[in-house]
Amino acid sequence: MKRITFLFLTLCIGCLTPTIAQTLTSPNGKLTLTFHLSEAQKPIYSLSYKTKEVIKDSKMGFTLQPHYSFDSGFKVIKTTYSDSNTTWTPVWGENNKIQDNHKEMLIQLVQDKTNWLLNIRFRLFDDGLGFRYEFPVQKNLRHFIIKEENTEFSLTGDHKAFWIPGDYDTNEYPITTSKLSEVAQLIGKVRQESLAAKAPTKSLAIQTPLMLKTADHLYINIHEASLVNYPAMCLNLDDKEYKLTSNLTPDKNGNRGYIQTGSTTPWRTIVVSDDARDILASNLILNLNEPSKIKDTSWIKPTKYIGVWWEYFVGGGSTWAYTDTQDIVIGKTDYTKLKPNGHHGANTKHVEDYIDFAAENGFDAVLVEGWNEGWEDNYAYVKEHIYSFTKAYPDFDVQALHKYAASKGIKIIMHHETTSSVADYERQLPDAFQFMVDNGYSAVKTGYVGPISPRSEYHDGQWMVNHYNRVVETAAQYKIMVDSHEAVRPTGMCRTYPNWVAQESARGTEFESFNGNHPDHTTILPFTRLMGGPMDYTPGIFEGDLSTYGGANKAQLSTTLVKQLALYVTMYSPLQMAADLIQNYRKYPDAFQFIKDVAVDWDHSYILEAEPGDYITIARKAKGKDEWYIGGITDENARKAIIDLSFLPKGQKYQATIYADGKTANWKTNPKSYVISTKKVTSKTVLKPQLAPSGGVAISIKKI
Amino acid sequence: MKRITFLFLTLCIGCLTPTIAQTLTSPNGKLTLTFHLSEAQKPIYSLSYKTKEVIKDSKMGFTLQPHYSFDSGFKVIKTTYSDSNTTWTPVWGENNKIQDNHKEMLIQLVQDKTNWLLNIRFRLFDDGLGFRYEFPVQKNLRHFIIKEENTEFSLTGDHKAFWIPGDYDTNEYPITTSKLSEVAQLIGKVRQESLAAKAPTKSLAIQTPLMLKTADHLYINIHEASLVNYPAMCLNLDDKEYKLTSNLTPDKNGNRGYIQTGSTTPWRTIVVSDDARDILASNLILNLNEPSKIKDTSWIKPTKYIGVWWEYFVGGGSTWAYTDTQDIVIGKTDYTKLKPNGHHGANTKHVEDYIDFAAENGFDAVLVEGWNEGWEDNYAYVKEHIYSFTKAYPDFDVQALHKYAASKGIKIIMHHETTSSVADYERQLPDAFQFMVDNGYSAVKTGYVGPISPRSEYHDGQWMVNHYNRVVETAAQYKIMVDSHEAVRPTGMCRTYPNWVAQESARGTEFESFNGNHPDHTTILPFTRLMGGPMDYTPGIFEGDLSTYGGANKAQLSTTLVKQLALYVTMYSPLQMAADLIQNYRKYPDAFQFIKDVAVDWDHSYILEAEPGDYITIARKAKGKDEWYIGGITDENARKAIIDLSFLPKGQKYQATIYADGKTANWKTNPKSYVISTKKVTSKTVLKPQLAPSGGVAISIKKI
Repeated sequence: MKRITFLFLTLCIGCLTPTIAQTLTSPNGKLTLTFHLSEAQKPIYSLSYKTKEVIKDSKMGFTLQPHYSFDSGFKVIKTTYSDSNTTWTPVWGENNKIQDNHKEMLIQLVQDKTNWLLNIRFRLFDDGLGFRYEFPVQKNLRHFIIKEENTEFSLTGDHKAFWIPGDYDTNEYPITTSKLSEVAQLIGKVRQESLAAKAPTKSLAIQTPLMLKTADHLYINIHEASLVNYPAMCLNLDDKEYKLTSNLTPDKNGNRGYIQTGSTTPWRTIVVSDDARDILASNLILNLNEPSKIKDTSWIKPTKYIGVWWEYFVGGGSTWAYTDTQDIVIGKTDYTKLKPNGHHGANTKHVEDYIDFAAENGFDAVLVEGWNEGWEDNYAYVKEHIYSFTKAYPDFDVQALHKYAASKGIKIIMHHETTSSVADYERQLPDAFQFMVDNGYSAVKTGYVGPISPRSEYHDGQWMVNHYNRVVETAAQYKIMVDSHEAVRPTGMCRTYPNWVAQESARGTEFESFNGNHPDHTTILPFTRLMGGPMDYTPGIFEGDLSTYGGANKAQLSTTLVKQLALYVTMYSPLQMAADLIQNYRKYPDAFQFIKDVAVDWDHSYILEAEPGDYITIARKAKGKDEWYIGGITDENARKAIIDLSFLPKGQKYQATIYADGKTANWKTNPKSYVISTKKVTSKTVLKPQLAPSGGVAISIKKI
Repeated sequence: MKRITFLFLTLCIGCLTPTIAQTLTSPNGKLTLTFHLSEAQKPIYSLSYKTKEVIKDSKMGFTLQPHYSFDSGFKVIKTTYSDSNTTWTPVWGENNKIQDNHKEMLIQLVQDKTNWLLNIRFRLFDDGLGFRYEFPVQKNLRHFIIKEENTEFSLTGDHKAFWIPGDYDTNEYPITTSKLSEVAQLIGKVRQESLAAKAPTKSLAIQTPLMLKTADHLYINIHEASLVNYPAMCLNLDDKEYKLTSNLTPDKNGNRGYIQTGSTTPWRTIVVSDDARDILASNLILNLNEPSKIKDTSWIKPTKYIGVWWEYFVGGGSTWAYTDTQDIVIGKTDYTKLKPNGHHGANTKHVEDYIDFAAENGFDAVLVEGWNEGWEDNYAYVKEHIYSFTKAYPDFDVQALHKYAASKGIKIIMHHETTSSVADYERQLPDAFQFMVDNGYSAVKTGYVGPISPRSEYHDGQWMVNHYNRVVETAAQYKIMVDSHEAVRPTGMCRTYPNWVAQESARGTEFESFNGNHPDHTTILPFTRLMGGPMDYTPGIFEGDLSTYGGANKAQLSTTLVKQLALYVTMYSPLQMAADLIQNYRKYPDAFQFIKDVAVDWDHSYILEAEPGDYITIARKAKGKDEWYIGGITDENARKAIIDLSFLPKGQKYQATIYADGKTANWKTNPKSYVISTKKVTSKTVLKPQLAPSGGVAISIKKI
């Protein structure tokens, strides 16, 4: 009753409030947001950076099911300004402290003819804008279905864009760099890419995080933060007006969101700067997420791991499946009576070898894929009970491996490939997590290959968003860390659930085994996919010529060997794999030393050089250690990196070990040529290593 | 390997087998089935009874996704004949022994151009035919999607039909009696019926179990048996040719079944006789189901119960909801801080009164609806996490009631209304069942009101069929009996899972509170819905004039009081409710005596008189007792029942207590007029009680 009285009172106050434009300025004064109601009483916002327009007048609001306009006929009840400047400590991260300094403007609206209430909350930071819709608890509205969100991002021109096609089921397309006006002519070909699940938008649309660069050198990144009980957003592109409009992932009935009042949308985020490095340094998305909901986080540990994985891709014959028999009914088929195929990867002896190697080389964990019943007949969509998550293959001795790994201080990472049979996964989840706990597992890699069952759903829709969040929340109850693959692109939720240590949700290293990644791929990902959170990119491939395995696969890696090292720094993640086979690390022990040394958690990060699509150079200080690691990468063009070590403490001398491309190195013709040298350095040193085409540089710096 | 060799061999043998018509005759010789391949190599069957055609030449087969014909181009590999005559003992039932005497013909087919194998297995009983399709494990086919099953039931004329409209979401329509040629003109109005969930077929279709009567007095019942991992079937009606064709419930993507070879369809059943009583006496559907999968069935107990239920319908103010606050978020809302509405039915004191009354009157259990959090805001389809199944309302003391009920020897029946949020129910299921076990519950009434979430699904589709079966199977692991409401119509699965003690799945007594049942309703249900298994019809309403409750509800019961008594015998169920309020039973203690006395499990049943839509008279011997109970009912027409007691042991004298309609009794004008008399009877006695319009007679017979 108290709440209703309050709303009634503010409504009356609201009648007197004029609806003129209102502005908000960022703490450093460089960003300005304006908000007003149009003549049709539509909410309109715009954003400028210094003297430049970033977002022109853009509409906001919703169409509700079936075709009801909830984006016009509003009046402003009340506007509330506030500001906040705090610092928080992430459980793990690129920096050990994060500042959250913003100004806030809360606009409370009422739609005249319905008396329905809608709030819009803007937060303006020095590095960009976040805003979200809020649906307060109210008398006349409780449940509604969103047919579409009508949020516009009206751009000022035909910007350069780093984009993948709008799709409700996948984020695994290769990234295209083009002007917005060129998307329409290019998108058809990109959409032909062979992927396990695809649901292209009917309209011309592109995915977020979307990286843009204007003709006058503004860098703009559009994404979202804190995706909870809401579908993921891609962006319709009006390539005449250069206007982007939200396109929420629907279910297959065409409904986008089932909403109960007392809730909010995710934040829509616009990170902006005239220096590309600021985009990578931005913490805006993390700042817009809720603080950790996990109280005791002591069990969450950044992890470097190897695994029984890449061997399934290189064509050497190793398989996830234990048998060649495909007529499998989980729960009925007795695997002990089937003939093994003789080349099953996840067998006890082979995993023990991995555990030995991990222990010898200072890794934390070994991932094992293909350990459980069901891989022989894992048909997505048509089969529902595909896998058992508590029943190992006969040649994978769970208890013996648990003991063996524990005796060597190594964790085994569980694998739950669901093949997108999600309702069945949810049924098994409590038992599956209990099985993990009982057998010493504390991290799980989940997988969502293929189209989703329940068959009303897409990977990026509200129902699946709730699923991913539910898995992570449930996992936390069991003290399990999660690394989700093929899930919806992240939105900084790892702040709220720091056990969500990584996601894939983009084109990862596995596509290298299909000749699938372009040399500029990893110079773009940090500006796009990684804006939402860490990626389990699985770098560290030393043998890039897959024809050496003698199988049909003749794919070739798109990078030099050194660039693979550099990725451990440029592709931030608290979960980093050394993805190649043991035999290849044994061939190049000196280069492998960098992977052994490199940290996976950091006190500070320094974005030294960055241009999306061209190059990235980042230095990071290892958490709690006087050690720094630097990674520099370039696209298909050779370049000289400029690495200014002024971030080092002054007056100290350090030894740098520099892993550089060889003089004749080239990703295509000579990828494995590298030179390792050492050098004494101080905070005054500037290194200028030469990077080969699709090459890199990796540097470790330690106290002398 | 062995299996594949076998198939190869039979394939070669098959090449030599001619595809001429093959016949099968029932054990008593009265039924004849023929099978042949048409010129287009389509499988064709027909059925005759004595000299009369029942089913004319009818096609069989499938269309697979997207539009592939799997119903022609076959040849017969092999035909195998066998017969079987066994007797089995049901855990509970209308009879304590059931004979399964049938002849079988297995036709093994191969489709020429694909080499795909399809078997058709016919079983011919003295009371009808069952046949099913079998998809053997085979080399060239493993997964496929059924676009439609093309099974025909080609009838011989414009039969009288007792039908409800074809609908994928409900079986709660009122039953219409008409000629098949009249369905088209009548169905539109019936479909306007206001129901919580509806998904009418696009085509002219009617539901099974379908009861038909031919002009020459053949009674034909078409349904299915053993519905497992397959959608329920309704029947398209060609009202020119009088041909019925299977219409499987699709998902919302238009796919009917996702099939893996090594499986079968349900049996398609045709029960036929020239005596309507044989239809009710048939055990064909039970015989076609698998034997019990539950080894220890000692915990499964036929149950007579009362409950906190009817009071929610009569308009007296009692509510499922604890508060009037509707802005509820389960798991977040603290109910102890909400103001109770003061008229919540499931409060501890009220339930204790029910427990007292149950104990005083020899009942086994008390059902309590509205005990758990969530009823205030139970919006189907738009809300997913609607209820907690482990959290009681503040005024419902689970532990105290558990103790209190146990001290009186009474069980409380749990209620799980899912409001069709099924994925969420599955998430909660293990905890919900454990909560039941922890608190002394051994039976659950489940409910599926409203459209289904996952939103790709209908109530009667394959996914939901699997859900209902999964709930029952899981419940068995916890030793819990299940009574499912608004679930798919039953198909005899209670033989396989005898803990599935009852279902609703039709228009039950609750519709009486909306003036919703016709006087002939319960003279038809045993010929339609009950063919698949027992119904929790919830009879026993004594106060049929709902205006007496002082609310807006002015509905009037469609029966006399005595007919309500008779339903305890005519509507077979091992779970029987006395549905009326305690106060009404206290008003009529003499009539109530019949409900107290009547058994819920039986040694033998005798169908004395039956004509669908007109009347039913049944006598049953109580299990393990020398007691008989007789129920006779009539439609809107008064009639004299002829009750021949020759089923009684010869030479013994018994006392019959006869509950008869009063002379002026009439469901509309004088429903509560009844006369109770006693009479000495023997096996030679023939009683001829007069039944009022929509009246009945109930008789108990005990040894003197």
